[in-house]
Formats: sequence, C-alpha cells, structure tokens
Amino acid sequence: MLPRSPALATDLYELTMAAAYFTNRVTATATFELFIRHLPAARRYLIVAGLEQVLQYLEELRFSEEDVAFLRQHPSFRGVPEAFFDELRRFRFTGEVWAIPEGTPAFQQEPLVRVTAPVIQAQLVETFLLATINFQTMIASKAARVVQAAAGRGVVEFGSRRAHGTEAAMYVARAAYAGGCVGTSNVEAGLRFGVPTFGTMAHSFVMAFDDEVTAFERFSATFPGSAALLIDTYDTVAAARKIVAAGLRPPTVRLDSGDLAELSRAVRRVLDDGGLHETRIFASGDLDEWRIASLVAAGAPIDAFGVGTRLSTSFDEPALGGVYKLVELQLDHEVRGKVKTSAGKVTYPGRKQVWRCAGANGEYTGDVIGTGSEPGPLDAEPMLVCVMRGGQRVGRPPDLAAVRERSLALMERLPAGLRDVDGTMVYPVRFSDRLVREQQRLVQAQPGPVERGTLGGPESHS
Amino acid sequence: MLPRSPALATDLYELTMAAAYFTNRVTATATFELFIRHLPAARRYLIVAGLEQVLQYLEELRFSEEDVAFLRQHPSFRGVPEAFFDELRRFRFTGEVWAIPEGTPAFQQEPLVRVTAPVIQAQLVETFLLATINFQTMIASKAARVVQAAAGRGVVEFGSRRAHGTEAAMYVARAAYAGGCVGTSNVEAGLRFGVPTFGTMAHSFVMAFDDEVTAFERFSATFPGSAALLIDTYDTVAAARKIVAAGLRPPTVRLDSGDLAELSRAVRRVLDDGGLHETRIFASGDLDEWRIASLVAAGAPIDAFGVGTRLSTSFDEPALGGVYKLVELQLDHEVRGKVKTSAGKVTYPGRKQVWRCAGANGEYTGDVIGTGSEPGPLDAEPMLVCVMRGGQRVGRPPDLAAVRERSLALMERLPAGLRDVDGTMVYPVRFSDRLVREQQRLVQAQPGPVERGTLGGPESHS
Repeated sequence: MLPRSPALATDLYELTMAAAYFTNRVTATATFELFIRHLPAARRYLIVAGLEQVLQYLEELRFSEEDVAFLRQHPSFRGVPEAFFDELRRFRFTGEVWAIPEGTPAFQQEPLVRVTAPVIQAQLVETFLLATINFQTMIASKAARVVQAAAGRGVVEFGSRRAHGTEAAMYVARAAYAGGCVGTSNVEAGLRFGVPTFGTMAHSFVMAFDDEVTAFERFSATFPGSAALLIDTYDTVAAARKIVAAGLRPPTVRLDSGDLAELSRAVRRVLDDGGLHETRIFASGDLDEWRIASLVAAGAPIDAFGVGTRLSTSFDEPALGGVYKLVELQLDHEVRGKVKTSAGKVTYPGRKQVWRCAGANGEYTGDVIGTGSEPGPLDAEPMLVCVMRGGQRVGRPPDLAAVRERSLALMERLPAGLRDVDGTMVYPVRFSDRLVREQQRLVQAQPGPVERGTLGGPESHS
Repeated sequence: MLPRSPALATDLYELTMAAAYFTNRVTATATFELFIRHLPAARRYLIVAGLEQVLQYLEELRFSEEDVAFLRQHPSFRGVPEAFFDELRRFRFTGEVWAIPEGTPAFQQEPLVRVTAPVIQAQLVETFLLATINFQTMIASKAARVVQAAAGRGVVEFGSRRAHGTEAAMYVARAAYAGGCVGTSNVEAGLRFGVPTFGTMAHSFVMAFDDEVTAFERFSATFPGSAALLIDTYDTVAAARKIVAAGLRPPTVRLDSGDLAELSRAVRRVLDDGGLHETRIFASGDLDEWRIASLVAAGAPIDAFGVGTRLSTSFDEPALGGVYKLVELQLDHEVRGKVKTSAGKVTYPGRKQVWRCAGANGEYTGDVIGTGSEPGPLDAEPMLVCVMRGGQRVGRPPDLAAVRERSLALMERLPAGLRDVDGTMVYPVRFSDRLVREQQRLVQAQPGPVERGTLGGPESHS
C-alpha cells in the first residue's frame, strides 16, 4: 500500500487559505463547529463515530519534508514566501476540542465537534475532520438502524468488498460495531480495533470439491467447533438434507440467495427433523434494515444476519452532509460571533453546547442548542465534553466495545417512534432564545439579504 | 494514521478457506474472474480503474509477524496446525493476471480482471481486488458521465469531505481523473498520483475579515495569478459588483449556492460591464451529471464545474456489484470449467476473452465474450491483456495522465446513445456460441436445478 500523507489529506484550499492568513498576518483564534444541517430522509438520529481517528490525527499532524517540497513546487504557491513553508515545517495542532462522545445519538444542527485554535490550524484540519466524522457517523447510524430491525438477533457487517476501498472497509467495520453490530468479516478491523471477526465459506470452496458434501466434510474437519457451511451453491434445501444424511453437525448454516423467509423455514424443518436443533441459520444476501424487519415480522427462523453492501456504503444515503463552519473569531480580547447568510445555509454564531432533556422514565424528550456560556435547562445533560486541550488529549481513548455498549444503551432511551425503521417522528431540537437573538442581531448587521435559518427535521439530501 | 495490514485487509473467510485448503492438501490451480453482473440502472458503461493498486498489492503481499500472531490467537483458528501459519509466513503471490486496462470502457458480465494461481492465493486476494476495482471503477464511471454532461467544460473533483474516509478521498481523485476530470481538490492525490490540484477559498476566509472586499484583496495579494474568489458568502451579485468597484481582476470567481443559471448570467453581466471579460465563472454546489446537463442546456455562462459529494460517493449508485467467481480448476493436467447455479447467480465456465467489434467509422458496435482459446470475430479487438506473470508485472505501470487520455479517446468511440446522460441504449454484449454450449453442458451436470443465465442490460442494483 502507498505511504500516506495525513497533512496533505486535505483540499488544496485549506492550504492556500493558510498561506493567505500567514502572509496577511491574520493570527486570530477561530472556533469552527462541525454539524449536519438536515438529517437524510430515512434517518431519525445519528450515532456519532470517528472521533478517535480525529484526535489521533490532530495529535500527530506534521508536514513531512516531502509534503513541503510538493507544495513549494505547486503552481498555486508560486510567490508564496519561504517563511510560510518554514511555518508548515513547525506546524503542530495546539487547539482545544469539544465533542459529543462516540456512540452517542445526535441530531440535525448539533455541533458534533467544536475546534478552537489559531485560525490557520483550525481551518487546515477541516477536510480530514469532515471526511472522518461524516463517514463513520453515517455508517454507525446505518448500523444502528439495521440492529434495531434485527430485534435482538446478531448482525455481522459483511460489506468489505463493496466498501469504498480497503481503508473504508476497515473503518466501516469499526463504525458498524460502534453502532451495535456484533462484529465484522474484516480481519484488519479485528487486528486494529478489536472488533470481533466472523467468517463462513465462499461458493468457490464448495465448487472446488467434486461434490458439496465433501466440501462440507473437509471444512468441518478443519474447523470442528466453528464451521459455518454455505448451503446455496446449488440447491439450498437439498444441501441441508445432505448435511443431515452425512451426519454432520455444523454450528451454523448460511443462506445467501433466494427467498430467505421460505428457505429458512424449509431448512429449519430439515435440520430439526434430522435432530440438528442446535444448528443456527445465518442469512445474508442484499439485506438492509427494511428486508430484515420484514423477515423478522414474517417470523423467519433466522438466528443472525450478515449485512454487506447496503451497510458498508450506507446505500440508501451514501453521504452525510456534515459541514464545518466558522462560528467565532477572537482577536486579542475581542470575541466576535460569526454567521453566514448564503441562500439556505445560514449559520448560528458562537461556541455552543447541546443540552439533552429526559422524562421521568429516562426517555429523551428533546434537545436545546444553547450558547456555550448560558446554563442549560433544569436537569438537562450537556452533550459536548472537552476531549483535547493545548493539542493534548484529555482522558484516555474509550475502548471500542464500551462505545458500542454506550450506543446500545442510549438507543434504548430514544422514543420508540424514532427507532422504528419507517418512523416519521422528528426528535425535537431547538435553539435557545439567547442564541436566536444573537443570530438575528448578527444577520441584520451583515451585508447580505436577511434570511432566517430554519431548524427543520429530516429531509432529502441537498 | 494507523499502520495498515494489507494481508489482513480481507474477509475472514478468505483465511479460513485458505486453512481448509491447506489442511486438506488442495493444491489445484484456480482461475477466478472479476465481473459486474448487471450495470446499475443509470449506467450504460463502466470505465475500468483500480488495476494499478491491485498489481501493487499482489506484488507486495506478505503476512507480517503481527498478522500471523493475530490469526494464531483467533478463536476460528484454534486447532489449525502450525504448518499453516508457516505457510502464511512464506506467502507470495505467484500467479498470472489478465485484465482490461484502466481507462477502458467495459460492460456487464465482462471479466475486468482474471486471476490464475494456486487456489489458496487466488482465493485470498478476492476481497482486496473487489474492494479496489468495484470502488475505483464506480467512481471513474460516474466521472465519465459528469464529464460528458459538461460538454467540454472542465470538471474538478471536489468531494473529499464526503468521501468514505481520507484514503477513499485520495482514490476518488485518482479515479475521477482517470474518468476524465481535469483535476481534484485533494492534495494527497496530487502528491501520490500527479493529479492536477485546484483550490479556491472557503466562506470562513471571507468571514474572517471585517468586510468581503478586504478578504478578496488580501487573498488576491497572496495569489496574484491564480486567485479564485468565492462570492456567495452574503450576496453573490453584490459581491461581483464589489470586485469590479475595487478594481480587482480575479482569474476566477466561484458560485456555490442559489440558482446557478440565473446567478451566473447576472454575475457574467456585472463582470463584462466592468471589463472583466477574462474572469472565468466556476460553479459548484450539489452538482451532478443531470444538473450540469441542465445548466449547459440552459446556456448558463459557466466555464468550469466543481463536483463534490455526488461524484465522490457515486451518490445515485454508491456500490458496484462486482463479483469474483471461480471459473476453472486445474489439477495435474486436467482442466475443469466451473459454474454455480444459485438462484439468479449462474456463472459461465472457463477463462474468457472479451472481443470488441467496431464499425467502419471506428464506433464500437458490440462485444462478444468467448472462451479464452477460441478466435474472436473478424477484426475484433481483444480487451483482456496479460498484466502479471509469475507474480511479476508485465510491462510498466501506465502514466495516469495516459489512462485519462485513453478513457477520453475511447469514450468518443461509444455510440452517442450510450453517452447521453439519460440514454437508455444497452450496449450489445453476447456470449460466444461455444461458451454458451459449454455452460449448458456443465449446468446440466450439476446437482442443483437448471437455470439459464441471462445477460441482461442495466437494471436496479441487487
């Protein structure tokens, strides 16, 4: 694999802006917030993921001599003074980061990550932060939906071959586990993140032997305690009968094509009639939350699901439109809130906190996005916590299994109407009165036409 | 960034199968072919990409001691003899690879890559090959559509922040360039692949100054020859007027929101009235091939397009359903074609060649998929070439700019009905009579129900 250059894993404009800030001696401290304006149509909540990779990146961010050499010869940087490249050679991220912890449900307009740093630093990290948080949060959120649909049956992430490359495959596995899957087929995610890994066999293995039973016998001999036999290469039900007739007792059989409800019933019958009550049925094949919900509703005797393409690409909503917006500039001791008034893209000024309110039964009832300095509603819980100060991590990275436990536990506190696969409920999120007043004051002071920001619920991606 | 483990960038079952082949002494030589069964509904052709990364992976594939240690302690490998792990420590890919070169149009059912190697090797590389070829081919194909829609105007890939992580962002940029884009915003792709990189400025830069004109002046001072000014932070047309009034002469202005057809006309008028005839208008903001085609049809005076999310995630079709199927097994001197008869997933046996036929004007008229050994139709061109032999690359890696030239030139030879953004034409692809006979013979000899494979044109993803 190619060596990577984290400092150049960015859009060119982050670097041209850095040069322009540097040469114009703009040294203000900036605060940016990363948030998703609107949830996609078929999403009622997000599960935050990717923060751990962001913090690792911020701690390790350096420009190598190769990186600097590339920029020096780039046509856009012709005429940029050498002092700028020296600045890059010295570059360290020294800022403060607040974030909603991984595994936490979050909603439209809520800052998931907030970065305060000298403007060059805070700007430069935009692309990496967005690519990382957008992607992993999208996958964790999709996984949570699939896990909800499976209603207690295990879901294994199986989509590496359709993920957007092999690094994406590894982080899909990480984020899917954070979102509640029991594991993945991706071995690298097992090594790097401790995600439990599972595997069965491919059709090619069955085809490599003269007959199906020989393939099953050979595989079972190698993996006596864990063999999962793939039984749809030729004829699913016939293969189940052959297993019984051959006296095999596989822990699991896997169906991967055809009418899974019907086939699972027929196979269950064959297995039970043959005394293989302990053999579990694992099903895969173009599954997603809707198909799983329908199999569960039909009472299909399936014990666990493998979900591939539609999870690993978040197929129905393959991008999360997270943005990273300047909300505050601090020059000497003057702090200025910042808003943008582009059509349909109005922002809210200043550092924010998200407060989550709960009812007496612990169920979440709604969120308030307030200014960072005002008190939250009575008994509400602040969602953003400080995770980095002076470029150094605060606290230890959470164990990924603990992140998964967190997401599963917090999902239980969301209203049922939100967790339903076809739910249309919109979780209530509002801005505090003080924040709304502050935004209106700044919008009216701007050169552009005044436009009121709307919070909105889920809507189509735009 | 985390260290990667290419050998473990795979599904666990590739490794469990390897162990089962090893312990059962299955040493046959296998041939697998990677192909896409059906094109997605809104795709009339594919542009092959990703082969270079595949060949690099095959050349460098090794198991590190860390990889082996991870597998040895994995519950699935309990009881697998130590000799298997020694085999992994010695692992080298020694096989032969044929492929359709990068930048070539290809179609449903056509082998894009064909691997012949000892079965353990040929199987083990499946996940990496699929994740790489599926992903990059999907992006190059989407890019080609966008480039067609832009009808000669430049298209810059801008979607890193919504790509599926930062490695995906880099390969999106590579594949989009291979598919005809003029460049990318992704700097790492510039460093690693020589893709031309472009950048403008963000809204935050404009907002960091007390007024818009100061931001424009400062940025132009740093980049006198290349500044692209973003003019939609507050009011697009007003910003264009300010640029004229301030006597700035930016090479480019960028629109990023609102009605791009209307705004581009108004901005063009302001610029022309101010004598800025040389200033180009660059437009971005949720663009894709359909929106670009409609802007072009409306005669919007836009000189170049930046395309982000919808290109970098192939938003309307975010997965390509490529599969990697066993087609032949060779044991001693006996060669056996292999087919699978699972419902809806019938395969064709043996090593294949794809022949492309052209009319007198050079326009391609249709493809024939034949057995590897039969001659092609008169004057037809073979598409698969040998790219690796004995685990060593044949020839030198092509320059990426040459791959792009190839794709642009070959696109010109496709029927116009195929290149149209809303085209419904299906490019004719058929199997040779000999291949069909061979498949029928093997299907009838199989244990499962006989099902005829259908070639089919584009259809919805399944």
